[in-house]
Amino acid sequence: MARAWHLMSRPNGLPAADNFALKDIELPALGEGMVRVANRWLSVDPYMRGRMNDVKSYVPPFALDAPLEGGAVGEVVESNDPNFKPGDWVLHMAGWRDEAVLPAAALNKLPDLGVEPQAFLGNLGLTGATAYFGLLDAASAKEGDIVFVSAAGGAVGSAVVQIAKAKGMTVIGSARGAEKCDGFVRSLGADEVIDYTAGPIVKSLAAAAPKGIDVYFDNVGGDHLDAAFAHARLRARFAICGMIHGYNATEPMAFRYIMRVIGMRIRVQGFIYTDYIPRLAEFYRDMAGWIASGAVKPRDTIVEGLEQTPDAFLGLFSGANTGKMLVKI
Amino acid sequence: MARAWHLMSRPNGLPAADNFALKDIELPALGEGMVRVANRWLSVDPYMRGRMNDVKSYVPPFALDAPLEGGAVGEVVESNDPNFKPGDWVLHMAGWRDEAVLPAAALNKLPDLGVEPQAFLGNLGLTGATAYFGLLDAASAKEGDIVFVSAAGGAVGSAVVQIAKAKGMTVIGSARGAEKCDGFVRSLGADEVIDYTAGPIVKSLAAAAPKGIDVYFDNVGGDHLDAAFAHARLRARFAICGMIHGYNATEPMAFRYIMRVIGMRIRVQGFIYTDYIPRLAEFYRDMAGWIASGAVKPRDTIVEGLEQTPDAFLGLFSGANTGKMLVKI
Repeated sequence: MARAWHLMSRPNGLPAADNFALKDIELPALGEGMVRVANRWLSVDPYMRGRMNDVKSYVPPFALDAPLEGGAVGEVVESNDPNFKPGDWVLHMAGWRDEAVLPAAALNKLPDLGVEPQAFLGNLGLTGATAYFGLLDAASAKEGDIVFVSAAGGAVGSAVVQIAKAKGMTVIGSARGAEKCDGFVRSLGADEVIDYTAGPIVKSLAAAAPKGIDVYFDNVGGDHLDAAFAHARLRARFAICGMIHGYNATEPMAFRYIMRVIGMRIRVQGFIYTDYIPRLAEFYRDMAGWIASGAVKPRDTIVEGLEQTPDAFLGLFSGANTGKMLVKI
Repeated sequence: MARAWHLMSRPNGLPAADNFALKDIELPALGEGMVRVANRWLSVDPYMRGRMNDVKSYVPPFALDAPLEGGAVGEVVESNDPNFKPGDWVLHMAGWRDEAVLPAAALNKLPDLGVEPQAFLGNLGLTGATAYFGLLDAASAKEGDIVFVSAAGGAVGSAVVQIAKAKGMTVIGSARGAEKCDGFVRSLGADEVIDYTAGPIVKSLAAAAPKGIDVYFDNVGGDHLDAAFAHARLRARFAICGMIHGYNATEPMAFRYIMRVIGMRIRVQGFIYTDYIPRLAEFYRDMAGWIASGAVKPRDTIVEGLEQTPDAFLGLFSGANTGKMLVKI
């Protein structure tokens, strides 16, 4: 019997274990054009928090008492479609479960790029593409820029640090705690690190970027975004990827330095990875090159067992991960 | 004896009459290349508030116990420069006073466009150019867009309303009080008006723009900007011209809807009129045409007498003006 995590109630603020339940599910019959997949790797991502609210957004809300969805990589175990055979590795959106029966059109066969299959949930997947297009397109970052990235120890942030260094930028990364900063974010290549638990970010950023910043890659919002406003140089560009600070917040965000948008002619640009799907070929070309050269390395936090999926997801909000958080089944 | 308003102390929050003093000034001798100008019209503008703080910004702070500066239009009364003769009308930055002796290089002779000289402080000056480039360049507004402009009864806002209508856009303008909204902003051509004193702007904007907005021209910040975040459509563009809400504020601005930047891929762009000086020819061409056709009309609030200059300036922050606030000497 297959099992899938269900959303049982909508979280108010930070999600908790009792918002979720692991239930047996009935899989559809393996009809014409259908494929049975055994999931090997599940992705948990901060954007999923948004889908747990019952509000219209860029992706529809998760239904209650129904299986959750998310990126997953698995192996074909049975196929009734000529394009897939047992043993094929595939990427699909039926995560949060151990097994799925899906139409062939919902599956993407993993290309042979000489990388581990789970890379397609990380640096070669949504995570890496988000970092790549956010940094290089939404923020128009270029060689020589001073780049500040928040949540630099997280999945997207750690990719941003590595891409920015591969492109010849100066990088300041913020993360939670001295250990993650010095032990992890520096190892990614960051020139300066900010432990945001050590004091006001607006002061730490002044010390880390005495000349100010040209680019801010925002994963956090709140105080981080305000500090970026405070230290932006003329014509700075901000890519707004996420605001994890706000996903569970019930209070509005307060900004003391937002008026600098005017004097510094700051550009703030929100973006979503899916906007760039037509341009994925550029991304695969560059990212595969960086992975092959070692400029970008996988930096995963692996949690074992389907049962641990909600804990892995909740860990995103307490900074339990370094790099990409994955569940291995 | 010439007289000039001096800044005597830096305002903390809202400026007050006792921050200013009108004092006799010694004018320089009319040396080679110098011109004596009798000011006829003085401009007071919200951006001047920023220069009253002792902080580094895009324009340097005003010095204490020294004459204030600002846009002015005057008549040449005596000239020691071959390019200027008595009776010439000129635009210059030695406002807040009745008379000035200036080097010829500091004067711009008013071209003959068949308009009143004070238009060069309004629709054909900083005010009109700010509206024009902010709307059409910083916000990339185009025919068919739904445009929300705050402080639509003010100098820049009233020009934005008229330019947007001349370009075939739908316009929603906010202003203070039913009279200014219905009596003035509608007369500019706005399709919908919002009296921001009548209730939360986020609700009024929902009613005025049931399909949402494509463009927000911000003169205000605060609740107005938050409402624009709340009702922005996909790929909305915000031009941030000013945040009068914040100029005198000591508390940070709070935003409840800023996270919509991500889902709606909003672009927020700060700008300043001086960025567009190389492109003023475009502006003069279009604006002179609109003035000639009556599409853009002067909408001035005129205060008489040099003595009234600080009151005229203070009136900007209580919405005492409709259209451009000018001091006539």
